[in-house]
Amino acid sequence: MMRGRVAFAGAIHEAYPHERGVQLADGRIRGEDEVVWLAPIEPCTIFALGLNYAAHARELQFSKQEEPLVFLKGPGSVLGHRGVTRRPSDVTFMHYECELAVVIGRPAKAVKRDEAMQYVSGYMIANDYAVRDYLENYYRPNLRVKNRDGGTVLGPWFVDAADIPDVTQLELRTYVNGALRQHGNTRDLVTDIPSLIEYLSSFMTLGPGDVILTGTPEGVVNVDVGDEVACEIDGLGRLLNVIGSDADFNRV
Amino acid sequence: MMRGRVAFAGAIHEAYPHERGVQLADGRIRGEDEVVWLAPIEPCTIFALGLNYAAHARELQFSKQEEPLVFLKGPGSVLGHRGVTRRPSDVTFMHYECELAVVIGRPAKAVKRDEAMQYVSGYMIANDYAVRDYLENYYRPNLRVKNRDGGTVLGPWFVDAADIPDVTQLELRTYVNGALRQHGNTRDLVTDIPSLIEYLSSFMTLGPGDVILTGTPEGVVNVDVGDEVACEIDGLGRLLNVIGSDADFNRV
Repeated sequence: MMRGRVAFAGAIHEAYPHERGVQLADGRIRGEDEVVWLAPIEPCTIFALGLNYAAHARELQFSKQEEPLVFLKGPGSVLGHRGVTRRPSDVTFMHYECELAVVIGRPAKAVKRDEAMQYVSGYMIANDYAVRDYLENYYRPNLRVKNRDGGTVLGPWFVDAADIPDVTQLELRTYVNGALRQHGNTRDLVTDIPSLIEYLSSFMTLGPGDVILTGTPEGVVNVDVGDEVACEIDGLGRLLNVIGSDADFNRV
Repeated sequence: MMRGRVAFAGAIHEAYPHERGVQLADGRIRGEDEVVWLAPIEPCTIFALGLNYAAHARELQFSKQEEPLVFLKGPGSVLGHRGVTRRPSDVTFMHYECELAVVIGRPAKAVKRDEAMQYVSGYMIANDYAVRDYLENYYRPNLRVKNRDGGTVLGPWFVDAADIPDVTQLELRTYVNGALRQHGNTRDLVTDIPSLIEYLSSFMTLGPGDVILTGTPEGVVNVDVGDEVACEIDGLGRLLNVIGSDADFNRV
């Protein structure tokens, strides 16, 4: 099942795909652009992977790390489908990163990889923006790179794990203004999902609503104000996002 | 005003200091050890500072960084007063870090340091544990160092900013089993609170409930299973915490 979360007419609603747009839980059908899309869930801890596709690591000219390079993102960076992400006027290189987001469904501590997938409740598309200007080395990126407002776009849907028969063979594609710019497949993950859950749960307890952004494949290009960025992953839909300017955000 | 949050008799209560222990909002008075203390607030984003007291940076043999070294901590690491923090049996050096925690009260974007204190709603004591085995360099520490379960102890109280007349002159003290082990003063912060708020709000929006752990002074020593660690800060109370073993946590 695919479920979204939208604001409409004074309330927040669970919502489902419909041929004419989106259907709210109360039955109303509205156009996709008539509602405000929120992230499909309110994430608890957000983990993000750096350099988890080998070709992308080469693209950034970093060598392979010893163990998964994981960092945290704050809840203030979260944005929903069709949201506007600000591109600060004082940066030279900001790029999208289409990623498979894995949602944890129940507490997981010291889970072995053979059983790890039992702890996954579902998946979302994530667009994990980076301001590359401030990327100083291969260690966990600083907050200027990865924790900007609107830098973690999630949605449009949360899709139950049971509806994704083989999560190791999903195509990821990013289009900028309609042109294909990034293309990869989850088969090329350096550390796969069961190993990520085994790794993280070896030293901390994962909980329901925790989200793991599994990293992005190669093909990241700079985006500019006004660009429309669409991330697609097989079976999860299409996450649309627009790049806004400082002027869009500054109070006058 | 000092406010805590405790679980007692089937519910979570706001609670206040009382000469015989703690008074619940409904008037009941109980001993400090008769309730379960939770963190005084449920933090939104948790920011933590590395090396923000010069003497502590020297102690860890790191050179001074160019700009504040900030990293995020996840909500799963949060623990309240009198909680038990696990010391994994496979690590050689785990230390406490007594820190002043600053709580943001309203949205802050592009705030200048002269006005920054208006955005602070109050303070708490934090004990920001680190497993030093995994500290590989001065960049943002990895999750094995700083994001363990129970690694962010907060409380016992949230204290209104108005009740702390001069936050730049607060003594911090940590006692291990009653012996003073760490002693510092907020006057020695490398980047002070207004500058931290200016820095963070220059590239992202801070929100109500965001917490900034401002770093720890020198004097960190290894703690072992069974140790009782008490952090004190002038005007904020005394945060007690016990170190537990793997055996305490493993299901049998």
